[in-house]
Amino acid sequence: MRLVVVGGVAAGLSAASRARRLDPELEILVLEKGYDISYGACGLPYYIEGRAEDLSVYSADFFRRERKIEIRTAADVVSVLPTRRELTLSGGERITYDRLILATGARPNPPPEANRPVFCLHTFEDGRRLKDFLGEHRPARAAVMGGGYIGLEAAEALRTQGWRVTLFQESPYLLHRADAELTALLVAHLKTFRIDLRLGQRYDGSRYDLIVSATGLKPNAEIAAAAGIELGTTGAIRVSDRMETSANGIYAAGDCVELTHLVTGRPVWIALGTHANKAGRVAGANAAGGDARFPGVVGTSIVRVCGLGVALTGLSTEEARLEGFDVISASASAFDKAKYFRGRRTRVELTADRRTGRLLGGSVIGEDGAGGRINVIATALHRRMRVDEFEYLDLAYAPPFAPVYDPLLVTAHELLKKL
Amino acid sequence: MRLVVVGGVAAGLSAASRARRLDPELEILVLEKGYDISYGACGLPYYIEGRAEDLSVYSADFFRRERKIEIRTAADVVSVLPTRRELTLSGGERITYDRLILATGARPNPPPEANRPVFCLHTFEDGRRLKDFLGEHRPARAAVMGGGYIGLEAAEALRTQGWRVTLFQESPYLLHRADAELTALLVAHLKTFRIDLRLGQRYDGSRYDLIVSATGLKPNAEIAAAAGIELGTTGAIRVSDRMETSANGIYAAGDCVELTHLVTGRPVWIALGTHANKAGRVAGANAAGGDARFPGVVGTSIVRVCGLGVALTGLSTEEARLEGFDVISASASAFDKAKYFRGRRTRVELTADRRTGRLLGGSVIGEDGAGGRINVIATALHRRMRVDEFEYLDLAYAPPFAPVYDPLLVTAHELLKKL
Repeated sequence: MRLVVVGGVAAGLSAASRARRLDPELEILVLEKGYDISYGACGLPYYIEGRAEDLSVYSADFFRRERKIEIRTAADVVSVLPTRRELTLSGGERITYDRLILATGARPNPPPEANRPVFCLHTFEDGRRLKDFLGEHRPARAAVMGGGYIGLEAAEALRTQGWRVTLFQESPYLLHRADAELTALLVAHLKTFRIDLRLGQRYDGSRYDLIVSATGLKPNAEIAAAAGIELGTTGAIRVSDRMETSANGIYAAGDCVELTHLVTGRPVWIALGTHANKAGRVAGANAAGGDARFPGVVGTSIVRVCGLGVALTGLSTEEARLEGFDVISASASAFDKAKYFRGRRTRVELTADRRTGRLLGGSVIGEDGAGGRINVIATALHRRMRVDEFEYLDLAYAPPFAPVYDPLLVTAHELLKKL
Repeated sequence: MRLVVVGGVAAGLSAASRARRLDPELEILVLEKGYDISYGACGLPYYIEGRAEDLSVYSADFFRRERKIEIRTAADVVSVLPTRRELTLSGGERITYDRLILATGARPNPPPEANRPVFCLHTFEDGRRLKDFLGEHRPARAAVMGGGYIGLEAAEALRTQGWRVTLFQESPYLLHRADAELTALLVAHLKTFRIDLRLGQRYDGSRYDLIVSATGLKPNAEIAAAAGIELGTTGAIRVSDRMETSANGIYAAGDCVELTHLVTGRPVWIALGTHANKAGRVAGANAAGGDARFPGVVGTSIVRVCGLGVALTGLSTEEARLEGFDVISASASAFDKAKYFRGRRTRVELTADRRTGRLLGGSVIGEDGAGGRINVIATALHRRMRVDEFEYLDLAYAPPFAPVYDPLLVTAHELLKKL
């Protein structure tokens, strides 16, 4: 029995490792089209910044030796033939499988034509290229295209190293969140770091010394589609909660699949390492004969923007409106702990449905504790909590850690007044 | 219509303020037996330490001027006569009410007989007395009695100021948590701060230069009991979820009442500022003709122990066993964020019921993020989440804030292996 996994980063190796744990006898082969496997792609901005020295987690040797998982790099799968349970590599070589897991990931949208050095920040190789460039050039003028989290992280990393950074974001919002207050807050914050933000503007074609392109991703779903595997409405591979595709014996996980959004109940495509790892584990378990289920996501994310933690979960008010909810939201700015423990203001926003009182989403911005607070909202979203229930959450309090009314509860109280 | 509130700290003033907001015409009188009102008692250890300069939040003048709430200090209520809607003060003065809120608080267990300076750490006055003493004496040998959170905080505050501290705890556990692993971890940590811990030992009668007694609290429920108001099984005043006592028109809130534990469904007495504030607000709303309900607590707390955050929620394995659950628990020590962001190990413990898979409690110990993580467990407990649901929580991930598998999820995975 041979399990083949296409993709050797987060989802692929989680899947392979999980399958091995469940079935010690299975033959497992991982095919990675690049030269790097098992690295923390989310650390790329910090690798560029010089903070993280290496992003590799495990070597191919480790997998071979410790987990009896064979890994081939530079193995570019160009097609899948489900009827023959066969893959074809770019060189023409054919490989058969009994079970297949597609973890083909995503790719960045192509950068613009420019007579300048242009870099993406998607693979470890991208990171090394950019880092080499930075090592060989004095800081000068850089343009970053894209105000999503990668663009913001890249801008900060370059700024930290002395580059003058202009950040272009075509839409009027940062972080793909239609939240004018959030964007305004970040605009002010970026200004203090002297990042020249051009909101609602495309790259102006000026002569920058370096361009980083981070204008979004696309799922690598073409091979699946060509093999007759169903894609979903988002353009990514459609899977069941067992991470099964529409083709018998073929599973998929990671940035190439869409998942269920637990707030809307509808498919969503969110390319994040957390989901890739968890869903990969589920795909691996099922491919090895187990029975695991991935329930879905609530859209939680966090990003550091020039020292500030910016965390989001669930739906923004705009998204909630588009989903047909009767949207109501409130925000509050409150101290995150006692002032004599250097408490700072944290800004929390909560969105709910007026008809049912159900929480739909929220955001937390703060120097400290944004991750912990967004996780409380995320947990509430998982369980469809109402605002009036949320207001009475028994949250931890002691002066070094939080105020007696946590900013989360202060915001819930404000929201209840409007309901 | 006159509302009288007995007690002018957390619950009493939350109640009075809430009642005023709902009814601008109500006559509101607060009777406080001490001289201080509206102070953050939880900050006492930091006041002693010299970090917090003042703990007062609002003055009696502020309440009079801004909220039309009359406050009398040194007004010691000695009896309540519900049939006549009348209170008697220690001087013999009688005061009538239409609605009454009892927020009589709790008191520390009496310190031992000792020919030494003995201090409690319960009221602001206690704090000032101890602080004055510390200002007038050179650091020497101090004994702290009690290994609950006040004892531990007091020990740290004294140690910080150069005192040699011996900490006596009669039971074999710290923080009233029958968790041998937790206690062992804290024992080791206290040792590095050179606090001489005597576990399972009573105060030895030695000649210390200062004794701080923190051997627990008792609810001030005597006046209520004498008035024929029902007490609960814990010895504190029994209230409905509207904070009504058994006597018509009399409400109670704060450290003098018992609350519902949402994990067991049974009454529990937990004297904490968070509950006092929230339940006070509910009592005030209802006393003013509103309809608010306090659902209950899950037993969340956090304490700083020599720089370490120690957070608890729900039931310990021992408590869960006594409640008749088929207890299973797991703990894990995992990095709280990327190592290149100075990630440190955090220890998480989760307890569940083997029959249903339902989470029953947990603890988190870490330098950073213990509050945020315990709050996620607390939120899960509020909604009776199972471990297999908890394992797939969509928690925030980015290298500066958390690892791709949060320590919470790592622990849930360990626990699932045992289920």
